[in-house]
Amino acid sequence: MDKEDIGVRRRHTGSHIMTFAVKMTFPEIDLKLGVGPWTDTEFYQDFDFGDHKISDSDFKKIEKKMRWIVNKDFKVKKELFSEKEAREIWKDDPYKCELIDGIVERGEQISAYDFVDDSGNVKYRDICAGPHLESTGQLGVFKLTRLAGSYWRGDETRPMLTRIYGVAFENEDKLKEYEHMMEEAMKRDHRKLGKELDLFTFDEEVGPGLPLWLPNGAVIVEQLEKLAKDTEERYGYKRVRSPHIAKEKLYLRSGHLPYYADSMFPPMELDNEKYYLKAMNCPHHHKIYAATPKSYRDLPFRLAEYGHCYRYEDSGALFGLMRVRSLCMNDAHIYCTSEQFESEFQKVIEMYLFYFKIFGIEKYKMRFSKHAKEGLGKKYVNEPELWKQMESDVREALNKMDVPFEEVEDEAAFYGPKIDVQIWSVIGREFTLATNQLDFAVPARFDLKYIDKDGSEKIPICIHRAPLSTHERMIGFLIEHYAGAFPVWLAPVQAALLPVASAHEKYAESLLHDIKEFSGRAELYSAEETLGKRIRGSQMKKIPYSVIVGENEVKSNLVTVRKYGEEKDETMDKDDFLKLLQKYPGE
Amino acid sequence: MDKEDIGVRRRHTGSHIMTFAVKMTFPEIDLKLGVGPWTDTEFYQDFDFGDHKISDSDFKKIEKKMRWIVNKDFKVKKELFSEKEAREIWKDDPYKCELIDGIVERGEQISAYDFVDDSGNVKYRDICAGPHLESTGQLGVFKLTRLAGSYWRGDETRPMLTRIYGVAFENEDKLKEYEHMMEEAMKRDHRKLGKELDLFTFDEEVGPGLPLWLPNGAVIVEQLEKLAKDTEERYGYKRVRSPHIAKEKLYLRSGHLPYYADSMFPPMELDNEKYYLKAMNCPHHHKIYAATPKSYRDLPFRLAEYGHCYRYEDSGALFGLMRVRSLCMNDAHIYCTSEQFESEFQKVIEMYLFYFKIFGIEKYKMRFSKHAKEGLGKKYVNEPELWKQMESDVREALNKMDVPFEEVEDEAAFYGPKIDVQIWSVIGREFTLATNQLDFAVPARFDLKYIDKDGSEKIPICIHRAPLSTHERMIGFLIEHYAGAFPVWLAPVQAALLPVASAHEKYAESLLHDIKEFSGRAELYSAEETLGKRIRGSQMKKIPYSVIVGENEVKSNLVTVRKYGEEKDETMDKDDFLKLLQKYPGE
Repeated sequence: MDKEDIGVRRRHTGSHIMTFAVKMTFPEIDLKLGVGPWTDTEFYQDFDFGDHKISDSDFKKIEKKMRWIVNKDFKVKKELFSEKEAREIWKDDPYKCELIDGIVERGEQISAYDFVDDSGNVKYRDICAGPHLESTGQLGVFKLTRLAGSYWRGDETRPMLTRIYGVAFENEDKLKEYEHMMEEAMKRDHRKLGKELDLFTFDEEVGPGLPLWLPNGAVIVEQLEKLAKDTEERYGYKRVRSPHIAKEKLYLRSGHLPYYADSMFPPMELDNEKYYLKAMNCPHHHKIYAATPKSYRDLPFRLAEYGHCYRYEDSGALFGLMRVRSLCMNDAHIYCTSEQFESEFQKVIEMYLFYFKIFGIEKYKMRFSKHAKEGLGKKYVNEPELWKQMESDVREALNKMDVPFEEVEDEAAFYGPKIDVQIWSVIGREFTLATNQLDFAVPARFDLKYIDKDGSEKIPICIHRAPLSTHERMIGFLIEHYAGAFPVWLAPVQAALLPVASAHEKYAESLLHDIKEFSGRAELYSAEETLGKRIRGSQMKKIPYSVIVGENEVKSNLVTVRKYGEEKDETMDKDDFLKLLQKYPGE
Repeated sequence: MDKEDIGVRRRHTGSHIMTFAVKMTFPEIDLKLGVGPWTDTEFYQDFDFGDHKISDSDFKKIEKKMRWIVNKDFKVKKELFSEKEAREIWKDDPYKCELIDGIVERGEQISAYDFVDDSGNVKYRDICAGPHLESTGQLGVFKLTRLAGSYWRGDETRPMLTRIYGVAFENEDKLKEYEHMMEEAMKRDHRKLGKELDLFTFDEEVGPGLPLWLPNGAVIVEQLEKLAKDTEERYGYKRVRSPHIAKEKLYLRSGHLPYYADSMFPPMELDNEKYYLKAMNCPHHHKIYAATPKSYRDLPFRLAEYGHCYRYEDSGALFGLMRVRSLCMNDAHIYCTSEQFESEFQKVIEMYLFYFKIFGIEKYKMRFSKHAKEGLGKKYVNEPELWKQMESDVREALNKMDVPFEEVEDEAAFYGPKIDVQIWSVIGREFTLATNQLDFAVPARFDLKYIDKDGSEKIPICIHRAPLSTHERMIGFLIEHYAGAFPVWLAPVQAALLPVASAHEKYAESLLHDIKEFSGRAELYSAEETLGKRIRGSQMKKIPYSVIVGENEVKSNLVTVRKYGEEKDETMDKDDFLKLLQKYPGE
């Protein structure tokens, strides 16, 4: 089912609803509500909200009107207007007037979409660039889901309108399926679980979008870093560390400034120079590459760093860990020759698949953005042969590794093809994990070189990759994916040790000591409370193992283990249990 | 020998030398040279530099004059002057006039020191607050060492004067000893070795004082972090992660702003708020403490983070890794009750001693700064009983642990006593490793609490500690301490694998594979070059083990090992050698 271009637009005026817009990205639809005069009496009948602020209690009424519009199956017809006509039609609507200003300024055509009834009467007309469905009946099954304040044109200094979100589907079953997923997602909400499991916090005096990892969350952060370090070592990466700031001139050289300035934090003025917080690690890594002379023997040269970057996001766009201002990225840059590129790229994909397996990510897709010939020398660096070769190498590698992917024309980065990695959580929600880029332009801007076999100076290609994404996004995803019940190697606390009575505490303590010996993570719940209550407490915290030790266990050096979410217990040798805690993915 | 208050001051005028000052900190003396008129003919005889820029080739001439002054043994006499008198005496010297402005503004007394000959003639007079030696003859043995440009009053917009550094000693032997140490220190200069061993780099476009750790340096960084993590885990610390920025209001609350503003980077303006790069980790950690409710059962609550801070240092003051603008600190904050304080403090000292042993630091001293009663409620938080108890606890702990320390009155921080840890490198150079602080004021400002046994709310005490200092300072120290020949567990490359001929490369490759299996660090030098040349190369890079494998080794699963700096080889079982690489301190 591909309904990406569905769209029905309405604009209500008078003292009531202004915009009634279906957004283009399936399955989400959204509506904006505002104020203004309206025209067609039949169309707006029974649809008066008086002066009250729209809330989700109005959803029934809005859905009823939407259903009426869908059932009427109005034809949707595109019409073109001159500036004069348009200004006359929407003269009472200051928002539309502003849109017309913009269209005229850009020298574009003013178009509107009409809803036309069987008799050919225009029941509704709204200015819009389209595209739309052919008729309103095609909308199918829909449901309004939530509403939020939304500044006009995203500008905080402008009036706040009300945006209504909804979803649309082909049939009732698909809607039900979606509703179930969303219910599940709500239970697994990373913000809710992050709080319940003491994983991270935000603080008003520190600033929005700047997560602080609490001890439990920091365990996950460090376990992911260990996994990355071990894996990258095996793949021959070298690790580096770079500072979080740099002079403006570094970003002028890389080309991030001035174009990317809106996404960066504002500069600090120091010693008559501007310094910026880094929004990406590549310029620093390029400098590390350049710090020592390189020969072809040094390539591929792979630099890895969990690099902490800062990006400006509008405060309204911030969302838990998924949309933040400070992000710690599983970054690396691979400098190689064009001959080495295919094999290096393949190894990057291999690493992704290795991680997917570890995290039980079964559904994933690579979106492979390519250049377009027409853009060479304009949108794209003018290296037609290199583009062709690189893109064919990428395609070959993806095919060889049997990775699902789609090719997209004319969406590459300026300096090379781009791969967006999409993954789906266990409940079927889609996440964008990371973007990998192939770069055959920026190394030259940094004057990066290597001496080839024949003694000539050459410029390496650079692969930017981040398979474990950022800690923020990855852990946000994993919280939902695991519903907070992390696998043993990632769990902040791996085992709750529960002595049946105080007589067994000494044994529990020695067990705790044994666990700490190999940096295992356990907590002892002393026998002050009932065993039942302690087991429930351990399960509430989603600790993988509740370990009960009583008379029998003490006598025979055993433990009785209840796994998280299970009802039955298993008694085993203490040493076997200790081994369970040391299991590490990929080993 | 304690000559901390030695000082001889001279000011040369005319077109030549202006200041001839012995700085107060033994054994370093420094002199500033400038321009101005002078007075006493005998005093300045044979001491004309014409118009040329003073350089170290002038040291002989200056030392000769200094020796003459020392031999004359002029009495040094303090005199007081009225503003009018002073302005008249120094009317031709704009620098002194500016000093007089400052003294008058502060309402202080204007004093000068005279050099008086046996007949009571004032040979030289300079404005100065003192103190000075009683006579110039007391200076003893001295030597000028280097010179540097120095802005007048440290202000980059003011004229640059020339500062001459020197050292002074009781006798020739001590000077010789010092010269030997400095020669050794020059060979061990961390900037020189850092470059030769590819440990770190600075880049003009990134910015001064912002080290980038190259792969070899990053190994040391990560090994230190592993040591800290293991050690801190054993001591019951919890690890956290915090962002590198925060709103101004966080630092207003902590009290760092506005007082500490000069040492912080300038703010970034965002969403109508000011954000600062963090210059210390404590405020973020306090917020993490406050994020979840605490009871007495949670204390001591120990939060650890290798936290990356940014501090503004004048660009002229930057010096390799020792004086930087970005520093990654082995930070932790221990929140405890006042009853727990002594034992917690003792454990901190214990951790220091554990690290000293690992690094072979044999000479160290703790400088214990205490409050003064008169300052209570002014310079010091007004908790007389708590001060007394804490200081006595600190003294007791230091005594119990048999740690050398000195007590200093009236130099504590506002919020509690302070311990500066001094260490000496193997060649006898002193380094300030870290400052630990006990804090019984700031937790209240952050509204930090715990519920005590009796249900009442109490405020914890906080211990700030950083036994491994910052990566920058620690590694700067370790480079000098080890002369770049790091112990096996820290060495960026632990072993150079040297097959005698190409026939033995396969064996060397399997050895490399075995080493990488346990994250060991080795490099294979292929047999293209002579064995002798490769051994020399390995020694140049100060790699702990050069491992030679030839016919005999391949046949019997052996390796022949030459340790760094040694002449003789040792043949051993391959597995025994692998064990050598896995040795880890504290195990």
